[in-house]
Amino acid sequence: MTVTDELLANAERYAQTFDKGHLPLPPARGVAVLACMDARLNPYGLLGLQEGDAHVIRNAGGVVTAGERRSLAISQRLLGTREIILIHHTDCGMLTFTDDDFKSKIQAETGIKPDWSAEAFADLDEDVRQSIRRIDADPFIPYTDHVRGFVYEVETGRLREVVA
Amino acid sequence: MTVTDELLANAERYAQTFDKGHLPLPPARGVAVLACMDARLNPYGLLGLQEGDAHVIRNAGGVVTAGERRSLAISQRLLGTREIILIHHTDCGMLTFTDDDFKSKIQAETGIKPDWSAEAFADLDEDVRQSIRRIDADPFIPYTDHVRGFVYEVETGRLREVVA
Repeated sequence: MTVTDELLANAERYAQTFDKGHLPLPPARGVAVLACMDARLNPYGLLGLQEGDAHVIRNAGGVVTAGERRSLAISQRLLGTREIILIHHTDCGMLTFTDDDFKSKIQAETGIKPDWSAEAFADLDEDVRQSIRRIDADPFIPYTDHVRGFVYEVETGRLREVVA
Repeated sequence: MTVTDELLANAERYAQTFDKGHLPLPPARGVAVLACMDARLNPYGLLGLQEGDAHVIRNAGGVVTAGERRSLAISQRLLGTREIILIHHTDCGMLTFTDDDFKSKIQAETGIKPDWSAEAFADLDEDVRQSIRRIDADPFIPYTDHVRGFVYEVETGRLREVVA
């Protein structure tokens, strides 16, 4: 039995008491959250999000690359969101390596150097600001008046705003 | 007052009762979930995930592009996950447009054609299988024995497995 099988048993229980079948496609709160994939960061618990409230976009680091700009353009242009919340966090795995080292190790093992940037970073606050700047500079994300960036403290559960 | 401000008030309450400051960086359950950003799809409620359990990667459609392959490589190589759960869902926004139309509209409005694929799709199950194949074919994701794909039914709350 895999962990996936165990989680599927949880999904069966979720369906048994499900009462949210009426929710519309566009997010009710008009917000897109872009956060790190880290297991300790739960955007639902942290922000009090319910089913139907917000788009949630996540990746290693919570960084802004082409894929995130694609998701944000779709979120705003097709589904009406108008605010963006960026969340990085303390003790992030992205602080523990460099792109060069990570890609060299992969090349040594597989013979192929990844054709992507690993997007590692050395300064949390600066990478939050970097993410805000990448969104501001994107020509396809129309609404950038309400883009705010935060660092979630995994030690305390607190969310600290990064001044842009 | 923005919606972001309202959600920040929720974050203050989360911190006040926070008791999970001891959790380690690697996900306890060894799983990475890759799901659509859709507001109605809550992976925590659905799979019974708690803080610390699993990486959660999300984007428009729950598709596998370079960014997701980057996140999965980091998740497995640096943080020890060994299973992947892919989740698409019914009534997905990605079923409502084509790449060509979406990009043409953006080009008409901004003068610039996006340099990314919008990753729209016409067949849910087939796109889940497409995602599995992209992961299987990736040279940098080492563990692909436990990759399973699902469609979440937003109308019923049920999770249906897609046979690969």
